[in-house]
Amino acid sequence: MEKEKIQKILRDVKSGRVSETKALEQLRHLPFSDLGFANIDHHRSLRRGAPEIIFCQGKTPQQVAKIFLHMQPHGLVMATRADASHWKAVRKAFPRARYFGQARIISNQAIKKSNDKRYIAVVTAGTSDIPVADEAAITAELLGHRVERLWDVGVAGIHRLFDKLPLLQDASVIVAAAGMEGALPSVVSGLVKCPVIAVPTSVGYGASFGGITALLAMLNSCSPGVAVVNIDNGFGAGCMAAMIIKGKE
Amino acid sequence: MEKEKIQKILRDVKSGRVSETKALEQLRHLPFSDLGFANIDHHRSLRRGAPEIIFCQGKTPQQVAKIFLHMQPHGLVMATRADASHWKAVRKAFPRARYFGQARIISNQAIKKSNDKRYIAVVTAGTSDIPVADEAAITAELLGHRVERLWDVGVAGIHRLFDKLPLLQDASVIVAAAGMEGALPSVVSGLVKCPVIAVPTSVGYGASFGGITALLAMLNSCSPGVAVVNIDNGFGAGCMAAMIIKGKE
Amino acid sequence: MEKEKIQKILRDVKSGRVSETKALEQLRHLPFSDLGFANIDHHRSLRRGAPEIIFCQGKTPQQVAKIFLHMQPHGLVMATRADASHWKAVRKAFPRARYFGQARIISNQAIKKSNDKRYIAVVTAGTSDIPVADEAAITAELLGHRVERLWDVGVAGIHRLFDKLPLLQDASVIVAAAGMEGALPSVVSGLVKCPVIAVPTSVGYGASFGGITALLAMLNSCSPGVAVVNIDNGFGAGCMAAMIIKGKE
Amino acid sequence: MEKEKIQKILRDVKSGRVSETKALEQLRHLPFSDLGFANIDHHRSLRRGAPEIIFCQGKTPQQVAKIFLHMQPHGLVMATRADASHWKAVRKAFPRARYFGQARIISNQAIKKSNDKRYIAVVTAGTSDIPVADEAAITAELLGHRVERLWDVGVAGIHRLFDKLPLLQDASVIVAAAGMEGALPSVVSGLVKCPVIAVPTSVGYGASFGGITALLAMLNSCSPGVAVVNIDNGFGAGCMAAMIIKGKE
Amino acid sequence: MEKEKIQKILRDVKSGRVSETKALEQLRHLPFSDLGFANIDHHRSLRRGAPEIIFCQGKTPQQVAKIFLHMQPHGLVMATRADASHWKAVRKAFPRARYFGQARIISNQAIKKSNDKRYIAVVTAGTSDIPVADEAAITAELLGHRVERLWDVGVAGIHRLFDKLPLLQDASVIVAAAGMEGALPSVVSGLVKCPVIAVPTSVGYGASFGGITALLAMLNSCSPGVAVVNIDNGFGAGCMAAMIIKGKE
Amino acid sequence: MEKEKIQKILRDVKSGRVSETKALEQLRHLPFSDLGFANIDHHRSLRRGAPEIIFCQGKTPQQVAKIFLHMQPHGLVMATRADASHWKAVRKAFPRARYFGQARIISNQAIKKSNDKRYIAVVTAGTSDIPVADEAAITAELLGHRVERLWDVGVAGIHRLFDKLPLLQDASVIVAAAGMEGALPSVVSGLVKCPVIAVPTSVGYGASFGGITALLAMLNSCSPGVAVVNIDNGFGAGCMAAMIIKGKE
Amino acid sequence: MEKEKIQKILRDVKSGRVSETKALEQLRHLPFSDLGFANIDHHRSLRRGAPEIIFCQGKTPQQVAKIFLHMQPHGLVMATRADASHWKAVRKAFPRARYFGQARIISNQAIKKSNDKRYIAVVTAGTSDIPVADEAAITAELLGHRVERLWDVGVAGIHRLFDKLPLLQDASVIVAAAGMEGALPSVVSGLVKCPVIAVPTSVGYGASFGGITALLAMLNSCSPGVAVVNIDNGFGAGCMAAMIIKGKE
Amino acid sequence: MEKEKIQKILRDVKSGRVSETKALEQLRHLPFSDLGFANIDHHRSLRRGAPEIIFCQGKTPQQVAKIFLHMQPHGLVMATRADASHWKAVRKAFPRARYFGQARIISNQAIKKSNDKRYIAVVTAGTSDIPVADEAAITAELLGHRVERLWDVGVAGIHRLFDKLPLLQDASVIVAAAGMEGALPSVVSGLVKCPVIAVPTSVGYGASFGGITALLAMLNSCSPGVAVVNIDNGFGAGCMAAMIIKGKE
Repeated sequence: MEKEKIQKILRDVKSGRVSETKALEQLRHLPFSDLGFANIDHHRSLRRGAPEIIFCQGKTPQQVAKIFLHMQPHGLVMATRADASHWKAVRKAFPRARYFGQARIISNQAIKKSNDKRYIAVVTAGTSDIPVADEAAITAELLGHRVERLWDVGVAGIHRLFDKLPLLQDASVIVAAAGMEGALPSVVSGLVKCPVIAVPTSVGYGASFGGITALLAMLNSCSPGVAVVNIDNGFGAGCMAAMIIKGKE
Repeated sequence: MEKEKIQKILRDVKSGRVSETKALEQLRHLPFSDLGFANIDHHRSLRRGAPEIIFCQGKTPQQVAKIFLHMQPHGLVMATRADASHWKAVRKAFPRARYFGQARIISNQAIKKSNDKRYIAVVTAGTSDIPVADEAAITAELLGHRVERLWDVGVAGIHRLFDKLPLLQDASVIVAAAGMEGALPSVVSGLVKCPVIAVPTSVGYGASFGGITALLAMLNSCSPGVAVVNIDNGFGAGCMAAMIIKGKE
Repeated sequence: MEKEKIQKILRDVKSGRVSETKALEQLRHLPFSDLGFANIDHHRSLRRGAPEIIFCQGKTPQQVAKIFLHMQPHGLVMATRADASHWKAVRKAFPRARYFGQARIISNQAIKKSNDKRYIAVVTAGTSDIPVADEAAITAELLGHRVERLWDVGVAGIHRLFDKLPLLQDASVIVAAAGMEGALPSVVSGLVKCPVIAVPTSVGYGASFGGITALLAMLNSCSPGVAVVNIDNGFGAGCMAAMIIKGKE
Repeated sequence: MEKEKIQKILRDVKSGRVSETKALEQLRHLPFSDLGFANIDHHRSLRRGAPEIIFCQGKTPQQVAKIFLHMQPHGLVMATRADASHWKAVRKAFPRARYFGQARIISNQAIKKSNDKRYIAVVTAGTSDIPVADEAAITAELLGHRVERLWDVGVAGIHRLFDKLPLLQDASVIVAAAGMEGALPSVVSGLVKCPVIAVPTSVGYGASFGGITALLAMLNSCSPGVAVVNIDNGFGAGCMAAMIIKGKE
Repeated sequence: MEKEKIQKILRDVKSGRVSETKALEQLRHLPFSDLGFANIDHHRSLRRGAPEIIFCQGKTPQQVAKIFLHMQPHGLVMATRADASHWKAVRKAFPRARYFGQARIISNQAIKKSNDKRYIAVVTAGTSDIPVADEAAITAELLGHRVERLWDVGVAGIHRLFDKLPLLQDASVIVAAAGMEGALPSVVSGLVKCPVIAVPTSVGYGASFGGITALLAMLNSCSPGVAVVNIDNGFGAGCMAAMIIKGKE
Repeated sequence: MEKEKIQKILRDVKSGRVSETKALEQLRHLPFSDLGFANIDHHRSLRRGAPEIIFCQGKTPQQVAKIFLHMQPHGLVMATRADASHWKAVRKAFPRARYFGQARIISNQAIKKSNDKRYIAVVTAGTSDIPVADEAAITAELLGHRVERLWDVGVAGIHRLFDKLPLLQDASVIVAAAGMEGALPSVVSGLVKCPVIAVPTSVGYGASFGGITALLAMLNSCSPGVAVVNIDNGFGAGCMAAMIIKGKE
Repeated sequence: MEKEKIQKILRDVKSGRVSETKALEQLRHLPFSDLGFANIDHHRSLRRGAPEIIFCQGKTPQQVAKIFLHMQPHGLVMATRADASHWKAVRKAFPRARYFGQARIISNQAIKKSNDKRYIAVVTAGTSDIPVADEAAITAELLGHRVERLWDVGVAGIHRLFDKLPLLQDASVIVAAAGMEGALPSVVSGLVKCPVIAVPTSVGYGASFGGITALLAMLNSCSPGVAVVNIDNGFGAGCMAAMIIKGKE
Repeated sequence: MEKEKIQKILRDVKSGRVSETKALEQLRHLPFSDLGFANIDHHRSLRRGAPEIIFCQGKTPQQVAKIFLHMQPHGLVMATRADASHWKAVRKAFPRARYFGQARIISNQAIKKSNDKRYIAVVTAGTSDIPVADEAAITAELLGHRVERLWDVGVAGIHRLFDKLPLLQDASVIVAAAGMEGALPSVVSGLVKCPVIAVPTSVGYGASFGGITALLAMLNSCSPGVAVVNIDNGFGAGCMAAMIIKGKE
């Protein structure tokens, strides 16, 4: 699957340095390791430009800590949806880890201040959307990008949004998080040139159906230049934004 | 059920003008008539301030014409969701009838120009929402109210909306029709003082689900002062707006 | 966006009282303040005729108290969906606050008895719908309107409703809250002249789906003059009713 | 499975009239016949008190005619959801057949006028619900019961319903058909002592979802004594009503 | 609304025994009383043949006890969905009350053994459906009817059902409760002559969706003679069965 | 990916018969060919034990004929969901093709009579389920297996099913197709030892939702040994059954 | 229903060894026993090739223990969805029982190591799918089959899957468990010849809707040879796989 | 809202070149024109980097032609979802227009061959997804970008995808269209570094629910770097991809 590697193996077979059997074996071998309950994919960061992620929800603190420890020498590690108990277990296993509480992310690295002219704007409709939006922001920052945060600029008082227009219009990519009627990404996208990643949040009640209404509204945006990630998936939005801005480098 | 009527009957019984049996009969008697397939409720306009409505969808042109003819001496009649075949049958039966084609409404009355200072603003997000919005507008106009139409001012180009802001801010009540992500009523409501009747339309495709997305978005509006009617229910929105503005007279 | 303000700024520029740069700044400036996690919109009451609302659900007692304290000098403040812990925190921060427990509303003002001839009738189908209906009633009362409450008059024993008919028929606007099959607003609307705001409640079990059945039933009301707000959204219904009755003044 | 039959066979075996092999065969044998594409169940009317039914939808006119002809000597036959083409094919094959067009039922029998004191009341909310309700009424009449029809007595003008109250209160069982918000069965059930079979119809638009809203509303009826059949299932409601009234004989 | 009563009032007015004003008042007066939070409908048992029901879910033990005490002199009282805390409060207020724990019903009456030849068969598909089925059984028994219980006879081992066939075939009406795929009522109905009330239960997991699958399956029963009540609505099924069997007396 | 092939290439490289560049190319090359609008996968039958399938729905007759012609030299070809127009175009292009009209399948091969002791039983609940079931049956027969058909043995007359019990109990695998309440697979599975492939069909109306009810019921089967394919997916069921019985050879 | 048994009874009647009444009784009698709340079906293992299952969810530890004790002398017993409290109660009642904690299964038997050349491969997309997959694996092992486990080989890093390709391609049947987008079974099925049982798991968040997304994706697999069981139904998948592999013996 | 413009107006007011009234007017004026039924937004291409779009679905050929003609002097115009009748009307009005039939797009411009090293890869799972994918491709090409098409590389035969791996891995952004189980974007995203825009298509049947299954699967992708647009929204995907690649210039 990887050209150079295959070429190398072929050359080794040709030269007799490597036996046919062993070459066959090597062609199968890819760099991941097995903890019994998880196949860790160390070369993902090479292949994908994304760190290895530990999705903590549904994993015990011990499992998370063990995976974290195993992965941390191989580059940037992020544990998402980490609660206090996960954090406690990881910190004990790896005292240099950091916890971004509002975003519920544990990492083996700190955020380095970026002075990049290009930045990702992360906006929320309301204050309740902040944890999801911050997950996107921290993710992008850990991946090395500059982020500008604009909290609580929803459409019910649209002048709050217009006040921040220049910051929006100069962004390279925007992440817009909203619950309830999910109108923010449509309105924002109608005002800017850059792509908008819409993140529906589960904020709301009654017929908001845990974010489905916002999700549907965003998918039906009448404004081109909006694409959507899963409900509350701040991490996915942050990754997507990072991939987009990276291409611009 | 109606105080004066019952008092009248009671007095008649007391005075002997009316026998007990007959009084009992009168107490039951309410002014509707029976066409075999429809119980026409002539005194609805007294009781409700609304005309008798013929919902044409699913009725044959002949049925509609017959009901129309029966009802038309009793005041304002409106036949909604009327297609060309309904119109043809009604016109034949009652040549003075009028047809509002875009709104799909047949009526026995013309629209009288209103110079009322107060008016209902009817706005649409896109051009495809116009038939539904026009059903609301014609309904309100037939009921005697002044209507201002603002077509195609959706949130993807929000400056089009702001251009019309004074017209919106001076309205007594607003009807806002939108399909797709249904964000218009939220944004409009955030800019005005008057109540907003939101009408989801079945405009859109894919995950718009025939108007469900717009409906849900409107129900979840983060802006107070928005209430919602059924998908594509322009008539209902027009009636509701008329009832609201009527109270203000 | 606001005519007089812009005119004032233009005049100041013309007269030289204000520099071009500063004018530009002023044109952007709108009176809201930033608490870090919330953009408070102080002039909403001017613009919308509605108080600033704190939606407590999902906010910590401390956040609610902080916002409450910040907002309370600027007019009527209402914190909705407030539980006992929110109330405790607000009372500590602002001892003159009031708590309307059944409606789960905290306010910085008391309800003033209104002798208005016009009133909002708030009706419920069952006793379980009362908290939602009371949220509507308290909201409307805090906004200065007279409210008449009619609890437990659902359609399964329809004579209970007829007993209250005069009170319904004299109302300027009706808020009707019901769960389960949600039939009350249709029946009520068929008996009165005024607009009816229908509030589906999450009361019920099984195929009531947390209020969806009532919501759908209300949206499909065969009676014109019914508009619907979100499930359990008593506050929204109260606001909408207040806006409607206000127009009648 | 049927006691007497098994006893008979057992006695025959005992007496030697019937061989063991044959008895085994008989125990398996039940009176249905095979047309290749349909297993007709002739003794259902004995076992169930219901006629054999041909559900025409999705069957060709020829298939329907063939099954009809095969079944018709065995008692009452009903072909439901029969359109004009089915009727044409059956009439050709069996000229004495009858077609009840509004109810879309073909039968090999005429309706015999019943003078039974007990009757089934079949009511509809609107005129569009009549075809479904008439399917229930014709079904019950073909099964030999007296039916009283009350069309167009929906809750938006509830006095029309009250006018018919005595007819409802004297019924032995009521079938109530309604689309849109489906409130009629709840209201009716609250006024009578007998069981109510609710039939949701697909009448409506938008969020009526082809009858789902009415179905859900009926299932959530706050009035005990209501049970529900499938959307537009007039035949099922008629059968159920017939079974209930039969028990009362 | 009630003939004799109105005649009586009319006669009193005629004879002068009663003033016009008072007659008007009486015509409005129906026998229910107001506890502030509940309109108790004492004459429902006369009008409907059903007891007054207290639906405990969502009511405090104190509210339930207060209503129970108020209602209990007026005939049979049933409090459904009563948990231990409701029972404790009622027992304290009214020591002669009874608690049927599995059915979660509190009543002011005991069950009287019925020797009626006619009976209601209540069957369940599995053991987990028993609480719902028992709610139906106890309801019918408190209303004075004989009930036969058949637990755990679902279609996965259909011989268990056939073993009970005679008991099913002699029933006057059957209540069949099932969760998961909800096939039991269809199979039962295909084997008997009497009407079958199907009760979907919320038993199951995954795509059973809290009873929706069973509900849909029952509504789509290919066997005529099945009608359905709400998910887990044992009380409703018991009432319906009682109304049906009552008519047969 | 295929051991022998890779070994062959490696040996060729080693021996110098093949250059490194060419070997790299060969490692990428897999036997499929490109028609511009379709990548035909010729070695699927080797890899999967399944023929190449042409899903006709949404393809023009010309496209189907072109693909059919291209594929037909490579072994068994099946075109599913083929209507008369597809058949006409294929027959013109390849006169030896066969059309199984009820199953809507075109093939380049005839069905060979199998005398295998093992067989697949294909059963339907009603006559309307036959087209879907026949698609499963023809698929399995074209793949070389013996099929026994049992049409119209649904649960509403369960004795029809029991009459065929021996044929069911001797099958190696059963395909059970049903619409409406979808109960057949559960009942069948409870009576046999072999695996049951359940096929929901879109037969039904109202709350059958085009097969969703049957699908859900089958997924919730209380009987182990049932697995489900997509609605109306007779082809998939036939393939699955063929794969299962093949393993038994 | 069972030939030999019926023949035996018929012979006994013929010979006079058994009276007619008693024979009738015997024809009804099938070997299950009644615990009051559960009809235990002892001969299911004969009839179905499946053990008697106790579904613990919703049963008290005492109920589970009592049923377990009653069933355990009759062969293999499995209690599924057993939590620690169920295990505690069973172990006390039957100390030789075993608990497979990750799979939440209690059994009266240990797993016997199988050396069968044929095996079931059980694969998961992620680590969170392991409990469901292990339920399938333990079930199949208790039923006597060899199982190979492949955890965490989902499609986001598809090389992990290819690394295990030989193990997949030699399996007789594959169980593939996945949550989120549920793509694993499609991809696996495209690479192998054997049937694939797909198990959607409730792993995921937001629009995974507790496994519905994975379920739908699996039902829509574009690869023939995939059939699906209920969400999280590891036990059902294990049974199905065992039935399939058994046929191959 | 646009800085320079406002500054210009302010300067004009200051200098007296423009009166206060007129300046106020200018501040409101934004460059769009009114056709009566449509507010055309000419400066969108400046503001958004996107052309003005005419969504033809639901518009008459005449309306489309009129808008097209009005817009075409202002830059790139695209009419999407255009069928043959729209094309005929536009061509008559503007003979130089072009029609891209498979993509259903009419434009006033031809596609200019791009030699850009950077390109958008557009891939489909099957042949039926091509029209939607081609809408994305043509959109991006009209916007000036280089597109590489990869049709029919779905996951059921995953070697077809791997054959094209280099083309995927060198893309700057990928648009992946798939119906049915919608697995393609997840698998593709796991193999590349660039962002993936997932387009669910309505291809499929049964439980594919017109694209909902694919939509949900894509939203739940376990691979970061995937964002989703509406079902069949090829235009939206093409725009989003163009915006992303543009940033990279």
